[in-house]
Amino acid sequence: MKASDLIARIEAYAPRQLAFEKDPIGLQLGDATREIQTVMTALDVRPEVVQEAIDKNVDFIFAHHPLIFRPAKNLDLSNPQNKMYADLIKHDIVVYAAHTNLDAAVGGMNDWLAELLMLQDVQPLVPNADGQTGLGRIGKLTAPQSVADYAQALRDGFGVKTLRVIANDLTRPIQTIAVLGGDGGSYYHQAMAAGADAYVTADLYYHTAHDVLADDFVVIDPDHHMEAIAKERLVALIQTWQTESGWRLTDVFASEQNTDPYTYI
Amino acid sequence: MKASDLIARIEAYAPRQLAFEKDPIGLQLGDATREIQTVMTALDVRPEVVQEAIDKNVDFIFAHHPLIFRPAKNLDLSNPQNKMYADLIKHDIVVYAAHTNLDAAVGGMNDWLAELLMLQDVQPLVPNADGQTGLGRIGKLTAPQSVADYAQALRDGFGVKTLRVIANDLTRPIQTIAVLGGDGGSYYHQAMAAGADAYVTADLYYHTAHDVLADDFVVIDPDHHMEAIAKERLVALIQTWQTESGWRLTDVFASEQNTDPYTYI
Amino acid sequence: MKASDLIARIEAYAPRQLAFEKDPIGLQLGDATREIQTVMTALDVRPEVVQEAIDKNVDFIFAHHPLIFRPAKNLDLSNPQNKMYADLIKHDIVVYAAHTNLDAAVGGMNDWLAELLMLQDVQPLVPNADGQTGLGRIGKLTAPQSVADYAQALRDGFGVKTLRVIANDLTRPIQTIAVLGGDGGSYYHQAMAAGADAYVTADLYYHTAHDVLADDFVVIDPDHHMEAIAKERLVALIQTWQTESGWRLTDVFASEQNTDPYTYI
Amino acid sequence: MKASDLIARIEAYAPRQLAFEKDPIGLQLGDATREIQTVMTALDVRPEVVQEAIDKNVDFIFAHHPLIFRPAKNLDLSNPQNKMYADLIKHDIVVYAAHTNLDAAVGGMNDWLAELLMLQDVQPLVPNADGQTGLGRIGKLTAPQSVADYAQALRDGFGVKTLRVIANDLTRPIQTIAVLGGDGGSYYHQAMAAGADAYVTADLYYHTAHDVLADDFVVIDPDHHMEAIAKERLVALIQTWQTESGWRLTDVFASEQNTDPYTYI
Amino acid sequence: MKASDLIARIEAYAPRQLAFEKDPIGLQLGDATREIQTVMTALDVRPEVVQEAIDKNVDFIFAHHPLIFRPAKNLDLSNPQNKMYADLIKHDIVVYAAHTNLDAAVGGMNDWLAELLMLQDVQPLVPNADGQTGLGRIGKLTAPQSVADYAQALRDGFGVKTLRVIANDLTRPIQTIAVLGGDGGSYYHQAMAAGADAYVTADLYYHTAHDVLADDFVVIDPDHHMEAIAKERLVALIQTWQTESGWRLTDVFASEQNTDPYTYI
Amino acid sequence: MKASDLIARIEAYAPRQLAFEKDPIGLQLGDATREIQTVMTALDVRPEVVQEAIDKNVDFIFAHHPLIFRPAKNLDLSNPQNKMYADLIKHDIVVYAAHTNLDAAVGGMNDWLAELLMLQDVQPLVPNADGQTGLGRIGKLTAPQSVADYAQALRDGFGVKTLRVIANDLTRPIQTIAVLGGDGGSYYHQAMAAGADAYVTADLYYHTAHDVLADDFVVIDPDHHMEAIAKERLVALIQTWQTESGWRLTDVFASEQNTDPYTYI
Repeated sequence: MKASDLIARIEAYAPRQLAFEKDPIGLQLGDATREIQTVMTALDVRPEVVQEAIDKNVDFIFAHHPLIFRPAKNLDLSNPQNKMYADLIKHDIVVYAAHTNLDAAVGGMNDWLAELLMLQDVQPLVPNADGQTGLGRIGKLTAPQSVADYAQALRDGFGVKTLRVIANDLTRPIQTIAVLGGDGGSYYHQAMAAGADAYVTADLYYHTAHDVLADDFVVIDPDHHMEAIAKERLVALIQTWQTESGWRLTDVFASEQNTDPYTYI
Repeated sequence: MKASDLIARIEAYAPRQLAFEKDPIGLQLGDATREIQTVMTALDVRPEVVQEAIDKNVDFIFAHHPLIFRPAKNLDLSNPQNKMYADLIKHDIVVYAAHTNLDAAVGGMNDWLAELLMLQDVQPLVPNADGQTGLGRIGKLTAPQSVADYAQALRDGFGVKTLRVIANDLTRPIQTIAVLGGDGGSYYHQAMAAGADAYVTADLYYHTAHDVLADDFVVIDPDHHMEAIAKERLVALIQTWQTESGWRLTDVFASEQNTDPYTYI
Repeated sequence: MKASDLIARIEAYAPRQLAFEKDPIGLQLGDATREIQTVMTALDVRPEVVQEAIDKNVDFIFAHHPLIFRPAKNLDLSNPQNKMYADLIKHDIVVYAAHTNLDAAVGGMNDWLAELLMLQDVQPLVPNADGQTGLGRIGKLTAPQSVADYAQALRDGFGVKTLRVIANDLTRPIQTIAVLGGDGGSYYHQAMAAGADAYVTADLYYHTAHDVLADDFVVIDPDHHMEAIAKERLVALIQTWQTESGWRLTDVFASEQNTDPYTYI
Repeated sequence: MKASDLIARIEAYAPRQLAFEKDPIGLQLGDATREIQTVMTALDVRPEVVQEAIDKNVDFIFAHHPLIFRPAKNLDLSNPQNKMYADLIKHDIVVYAAHTNLDAAVGGMNDWLAELLMLQDVQPLVPNADGQTGLGRIGKLTAPQSVADYAQALRDGFGVKTLRVIANDLTRPIQTIAVLGGDGGSYYHQAMAAGADAYVTADLYYHTAHDVLADDFVVIDPDHHMEAIAKERLVALIQTWQTESGWRLTDVFASEQNTDPYTYI
Repeated sequence: MKASDLIARIEAYAPRQLAFEKDPIGLQLGDATREIQTVMTALDVRPEVVQEAIDKNVDFIFAHHPLIFRPAKNLDLSNPQNKMYADLIKHDIVVYAAHTNLDAAVGGMNDWLAELLMLQDVQPLVPNADGQTGLGRIGKLTAPQSVADYAQALRDGFGVKTLRVIANDLTRPIQTIAVLGGDGGSYYHQAMAAGADAYVTADLYYHTAHDVLADDFVVIDPDHHMEAIAKERLVALIQTWQTESGWRLTDVFASEQNTDPYTYI
Repeated sequence: MKASDLIARIEAYAPRQLAFEKDPIGLQLGDATREIQTVMTALDVRPEVVQEAIDKNVDFIFAHHPLIFRPAKNLDLSNPQNKMYADLIKHDIVVYAAHTNLDAAVGGMNDWLAELLMLQDVQPLVPNADGQTGLGRIGKLTAPQSVADYAQALRDGFGVKTLRVIANDLTRPIQTIAVLGGDGGSYYHQAMAAGADAYVTADLYYHTAHDVLADDFVVIDPDHHMEAIAKERLVALIQTWQTESGWRLTDVFASEQNTDPYTYI
């Protein structure tokens, strides 16, 4: 099959028009008319991920975070980002990214997170006009838990060593939970307004965290890398599509690289 | 003595022109002509800090982070930030902030950090024209240490439970260290260019952290609250000034509140 | 009753969405959950108005001009505007402003002006889509009058010592009159286009006045303070609402201060 | 003599570089190479002034206010401003304006105003680097006068029917006076900082006037047309230059039109 | 008849709302209430065209390119553009321009070009919502021709000495042709997307021409002056309207000036 | 030798600080640490130039026009520009561009043009502070020639089939000539002010050409591709440097491709 066949299927699932206006989603690099046999999913396309792709003869990388966040002003290969582009080009690898469109899609990133967060009755946090897609999700735990207990459950669920909690009282019971994968600090007022007791998102800034406490709200920040759960989900999606469409991909697998740049000491 | 006397002394030490262009430093709230007797220092002016000031009859809060980051569009007291302003006004407390001017000053925030970081031969990281003041500091450890050992030493030095390290190799020896208190991610290229082996700063963003790794550089992020070391330093400064100038302040002390909004679980 | 009850009633009468985009209307200062007993109306909230409110134990000031025109960058109390905010906060006074929403409302400022101007068949000058609300008003005198006679009648009606007329011929008869309370110079072309013989508005700038004369149009400028007629009208409105709603306000009255900053010599 | 000869002499007196950055000074309309014999001075170039120029066979109008404030998007002659341009072109009249450069010049507009204001020891209010030229003037009366007495003296001096005073106390004695011809409201803080007891300028806006009162300052506003005193001064200047340079102008005179657009009733 | 009668008829044919947002179309100069007898059409209003109009007692110039592209900051007559305005004013000539509205109109500039280009089944290239009007045109030749043959035919059709072709292969057969009079380089992707084999437009920039070749597309650039065909077409239109409406114009003719600024050597 | 050695030598000759602020000069693509043996010079890096480089085993392309004019938002290889980048990367070719810095340099592009234009006493047209470098050049012919004769001489000198002349009179004698390689229309007023009788530059826009004629000036436009003379000049420079520095490049030659996108028919 061609790369463009897979891309068409992805874009049926996570339509481009769901993306933020300036989000550089879509085909990142390569020739969409190429035949592909081996597909690897990834959260981030970093040098070690590219090396893995080369080592495993990958034809197509399906990533969540765009490879080319900032337009390239030149292709000076002493720049590590440019070097990575060159390695991909030399090995004829196609790179495709579904980012904020996958976040907003039905059955997308935030639905996967909501499931891991054990939420019921899940709705979009900021719904689009269709009522189905939209930014983030909100739902309920089957029973209230304390902030501390729930945070520990998430720490184990995401498999991280530690996570940050912003809360005035760790013993407070919480049941209605909002979630927004990635960097969602600027939406915490919406989470409050939607009736959430707590909000799970990453990269909450120091001064914003003070505002959260002044508002007596709760945020749990399991680190931006929480989105790595997407890797296996994307593999499963492609396998389903393969079965439905009779594709003959040789191999579909998730990158084994942990691209969390933070080590907690 | 009047609040304005103390302010004049502060501004001789950390001149206003050292501040960033839009940094809202200086008198934040209150009447600088008031007599003051009790001074409290603080990193952040948050509701619990204001309550402490009221409880202890504080006349003057000398803070590092500005109280009024964003101009107030109204003074609707249902907003917790406005409520805090009203409490300060009702108790006739004066609030003053020295922020990026204190960061850049000789004997200022970054010199205090450099000392805690055990650096020798300390120079400004991005020096001003005078060669003495400037953004951040750079200096040397007396002997190389591994990233892991040094990070653990800082974790203990700052008294935090955990800190984030961004490094490809935790065993690499490092000796030349750059530091910039607060949110210094956008200066990591300068730290590399200045010859640092590692850079200590806070709030390093996920995608920036990837760039750091691609550049094979090292960042240690002890959390923005590392600047809380300023509280005792500011107390010491005021006590010195008191002796020099024959002021008769009744009491000068650091706020006992820990304003780190993050709990690590 | 609570301040918020009165505010809800005001906003039913002069809906917020009628206001100009950047007009800082609404709750200006204070705690809307407070119980209120004494209400004072005002055109401008100036230091002498605040002093009157304090002297008369006022709980709520309902003003036409917003108190906080420009966001406050700090609350340095040597600034007279900030000092006024502090006095209001210390005396627990709530300040609320209905400005361009009151101008545009049915039964609002421009309708009151049209009545004082003795106009019949009054319509919005620049109507909104609903045909009822809108910017300014236009209507007809029962019979034509000369510019000079009409201007003198307005001078007496507004109780001012002198007013400015911009006209090529003071003896010209006029009958269709447009009005826009406050600073309406930029709308004089609309007044002409709507068929007005003359336009009553304030603060007409020198060079704009030349354009008016070149266009052979007539403007009568009774001074921005003409809007002070709102004070008694707002009292009457609140008394009506009190009767309708069974509120138990102790007192409702207009500020006695003349806040016209100009003395004519 | 040619128009360009007179222009060169004007620009030696009021150099172009003294003007505000976007002030459209200089040759406004016409052919600077034409021979000129009759020169008329004016404050404003309005239709009645142009008619006077045509009636009196004027070749050159020397005005204070620029004729072309806003660039002309078309020359549709139903627009009165365009019509005025066409009349000037048809009668081969040259129009030249010295505006903010004349305001700032030594011996310029603000010096003329200072003289009429009876000031001694006159200095620029906001001096340029040369210490001589600059915005506005400040000087002293030979003895203090009350605000009311001084305002009445100015009313008579400018020959106006009424003028606006912004003052908390009309009996306060004043002696140091700042002046800025035209629309100088945005400079009142500089007048206060320079030590003025009162400030004479025009077009002070209603809300700015409130600020002036809150600052307990005094402004006297004799109307923008106060600058009409320039007409006779410019005539005198040209006659002096004529004598010095041996020019043979047939006639130099001030426009007889009063271009004050306001009638006070 | 009055100039305004002719203008009303033009604007019924080429409605103003079809023009680009900032295109300064419409009455350029003069008094639309004047009686007119002699009308001249022109592509550009240049000094030699104005001289012809004066010599032939023209009352009204109907041009395609606006006379006043950039607002006039002054009317200094040493500037040739201003001099031209003055000449028109002195001779009471009215100038009117229909530019991008005429381009987009049904039976407008691009339809005339399509006819000269021998196209059939002509449609708008970028149609407006009405499906009839719009930017450019696209149509078909009755049979394919080589690029070289077609370019030579156009060179003869437009009566130019030489024209520029941008093509990888001059022998390639083309049949579907897009056209956009004037400076249409930024629309070449639309022409490709609409299925054109070649695109006729002017002023194609050097680096854009490289992009065209990289895209293996064909552009034929017969020089911006190709629009001069409008002159005779506009004459014909006015004569038709004259017959329909019973106007009594003495003379309607096209300017004889060739305003192509380029000479090919 | 390494690519970086050649780059250092180029930048000593045409210093980067001479370039326009946003001109994307410098290393365009590739790894500057690579060993190079074969160098090709080019005006434009177009697909046929890249193919030639591949066919001839070129390691380094030294071009005048930057390869990457607009930052690359993605590297989708269906885009011909991206495809060209990929071909260069796959063949390990380094691409370097000296553009407006080479234009301004002593002994740079405009000096080469001045020589071909047979000018004496050549000076920068818009000199930099150093008096030596700068935009364009101006110089004198040994004797006056008619516009037509000189244009024909240039047509032969540049080896083009035709060139555009913008002139009111082709027989006018000219002797002082300004030149600016590439797209220099916006500088024609400077050329006039500097005393030029004619100005040689490319891409003069239709409406600008009318302004040139109104100003009675002369422009000769030999097509942007006139800069192709740089190819041989750059070869000569590199050969000189090779001799001076003892480099061992195997081959240095100019691209044989004519990248003029225009064919004149």
